[in-house]
Amino acid sequence: MQADYKRVTKLLKTARGQLGGILRMVEEDKYCVDISHQILACDAVLRRANREILQAHLESCVQGAFHSGSKEETDAKIQELVELIGKLSK
Amino acid sequence: MQADYKRVTKLLKTARGQLGGILRMVEEDKYCVDISHQILACDAVLRRANREILQAHLESCVQGAFHSGSKEETDAKIQELVELIGKLSK
Amino acid sequence: MQADYKRVTKLLKTARGQLGGILRMVEEDKYCVDISHQILACDAVLRRANREILQAHLESCVQGAFHSGSKEETDAKIQELVELIGKLSK
Amino acid sequence: MQADYKRVTKLLKTARGQLGGILRMVEEDKYCVDISHQILACDAVLRRANREILQAHLESCVQGAFHSGSKEETDAKIQELVELIGKLSK
Repeated sequence: MQADYKRVTKLLKTARGQLGGILRMVEEDKYCVDISHQILACDAVLRRANREILQAHLESCVQGAFHSGSKEETDAKIQELVELIGKLSK
Repeated sequence: MQADYKRVTKLLKTARGQLGGILRMVEEDKYCVDISHQILACDAVLRRANREILQAHLESCVQGAFHSGSKEETDAKIQELVELIGKLSK
Repeated sequence: MQADYKRVTKLLKTARGQLGGILRMVEEDKYCVDISHQILACDAVLRRANREILQAHLESCVQGAFHSGSKEETDAKIQELVELIGKLSK
Repeated sequence: MQADYKRVTKLLKTARGQLGGILRMVEEDKYCVDISHQILACDAVLRRANREILQAHLESCVQGAFHSGSKEETDAKIQELVELIGKLSK
């Protein structure tokens, strides 16, 4: 996941910064609707980080396992994807 | 996808039945909130059908390609999953 | 919901048409990934119909209750929204 | 939002703690699938915080505006909800 490491880290740090801002908004009793929009924005950044991680995972770990891995290893990768897609498509 | 064909078909027929009911509710000018709950219920059935299809896809098509397919074929499967996960994790 | 009735009906009929197409794809044993993309497209139409219904609901029923309704009526509207938002933000 | 202030703050702090852990996992080059599950868990906490904020908003700010506010104020509240529901039901 080398290539995407920096981008994912940057997204996660952005989300952490947003979350700090959201906590301050709650402490300072800011308007709920504004807080809600900020949470949705932070949520979108997290989801983008997740998307990048999963896409990098497919293109490196999964693809690697399929080209060189044993049947057990590829089957395990498939089961992990089954579980992840189960969560993502809820 | 043989094994799951019946279950997916059943889920999709359930969703189609729900959608017919929803259309009648709109025509009969039923209460919007009740219509909304029915749409969310139909949506949940569709998502479950999608989950079943993707899980069957992983366990048959993708797994099959990895055990017997060419590099081009497995790379194509990976790219399809990258695209799908991009949509699912939005 | 008069103004939006036609648009919602049209969206729901579009979704029903898509669902019929998806059922045929499953019967004809089309490629799972193509079926999945169609389900996601149908899902997006359903969600748009739901969005339109809820927005019309807010601008007619809820707004109406607030301008002319009793405290019981407005409280009931609020509770319905609390429940709906609970489902939508899952 | 007094009553729910503590619960929302607690949820947001939980999410911030999870996010710190996720950043460490990325730095330590942990397995992508495990990172993805942690992001989804953090995402679920954020969504719950959002749900709590919106429900408190409905039961305090919106309900308050409707019982004592001017037409302009209640109309503004409605428009905010229309916009929020537009985002939530995407």
